[in-house]
Amino acid sequence: MWRLYQFPLCPFSRKVRLLLSEKGVGYELWRENPWEDTDEFASLNPAGRTPVLHDPEKKITLCDSRAICEYFEETVEQAPMINGTVKGRAEIRRLVALFDENFFSDVTGPLLQERMMKRLITRQPPDSRRLRDAMKMAHGHLDYIDYLIDNRPWLAGSRMSLADLAAAAQISVADYLGGIDWTGHEQTRGWYSIFKSRPSFRPLLSERMEVIQPPSHYADVDG
Amino acid sequence: MWRLYQFPLCPFSRKVRLLLSEKGVGYELWRENPWEDTDEFASLNPAGRTPVLHDPEKKITLCDSRAICEYFEETVEQAPMINGTVKGRAEIRRLVALFDENFFSDVTGPLLQERMMKRLITRQPPDSRRLRDAMKMAHGHLDYIDYLIDNRPWLAGSRMSLADLAAAAQISVADYLGGIDWTGHEQTRGWYSIFKSRPSFRPLLSERMEVIQPPSHYADVDG
Repeated sequence: MWRLYQFPLCPFSRKVRLLLSEKGVGYELWRENPWEDTDEFASLNPAGRTPVLHDPEKKITLCDSRAICEYFEETVEQAPMINGTVKGRAEIRRLVALFDENFFSDVTGPLLQERMMKRLITRQPPDSRRLRDAMKMAHGHLDYIDYLIDNRPWLAGSRMSLADLAAAAQISVADYLGGIDWTGHEQTRGWYSIFKSRPSFRPLLSERMEVIQPPSHYADVDG
Repeated sequence: MWRLYQFPLCPFSRKVRLLLSEKGVGYELWRENPWEDTDEFASLNPAGRTPVLHDPEKKITLCDSRAICEYFEETVEQAPMINGTVKGRAEIRRLVALFDENFFSDVTGPLLQERMMKRLITRQPPDSRRLRDAMKMAHGHLDYIDYLIDNRPWLAGSRMSLADLAAAAQISVADYLGGIDWTGHEQTRGWYSIFKSRPSFRPLLSERMEVIQPPSHYADVDG
């Protein structure tokens, strides 16, 4: 059985969980706080980051969320998520990178720093200016998602793909941390509310990260 | 003909150039300074980052260096760089992410900020503490590459792969900016010196970034 090393608010682990669940791959959740920087975790992943998937019987360790997704895309036929033509797959991978890198560094990363790391580790109050900046950047990203959905049924084209999972994973963490103002983003809201009702997404929405509470609309399918 | 939007010290563009050259794919260099944030470039890549590959005749635009590499891996058989078994490919992609993300954020990114951006844009002197930290982190990464080469002919296994190209691309930029102290890294030095003599690497080593000069050993194959 695969062990997924993760913590509840890791957006990259959430992307992998959505993929595994859509593909019907079973796994156990293993809690890992990468900021604790243990030797045991460093020996699994020298990059020191979650998610890591490890199968102790088969002695396979997979690191890096995009490498993990490519692995299951290559090994499990069910629910292809890097699908379509070669040009379509390039578009899916472009969007995955946009959400993993730009959305994360503009929005999810700063929110995790201010609302999770400062609360749990350094016990400092969040920097309200950084929070405002992250929420402003979130608006820009949601504008772009609105634009994509105005032009396509799903973010990368006519079928649900890893681009949708990557976006939903980042947005769900940002939303948990109170960083998403949904006003004026009806297209993205509609797309995200379909996601929230998927069986792959329900378990994620029911989990909580210790003392940090999400806003009331967070797990609400119509929220 | 493909147009590659890049600037000489972009490590991600260098990785793509090495791949295209190894695969025998022709391209023109188009200079782009992503920090100038032009509307024209934003319309090619909403992420605002280099590299971008664009073919105006075929109307194809490819963004994100990993998506670009996967595209050419899928379309050009020559010189497979995400090669081997499915487990081997996961190892290649893990290492590519390690160099693209960890090496870049620890070493190449801070060096570019201190030695290129401050020189060309803000006209400030570099922060010597950030430079020292980046060089210290570089030692740690080179230790890990030494360890890999002690155990394998190439970074990800028995064949040259995208992992080698990604590492060489980051190291070459860090070396240009004077951030690599090669003392004590004989394994990595030997591996890198083989790379430097490859036809795919020679054009990169001969280019200069405006007023910024590399150290004397930079383009020297025995350096």
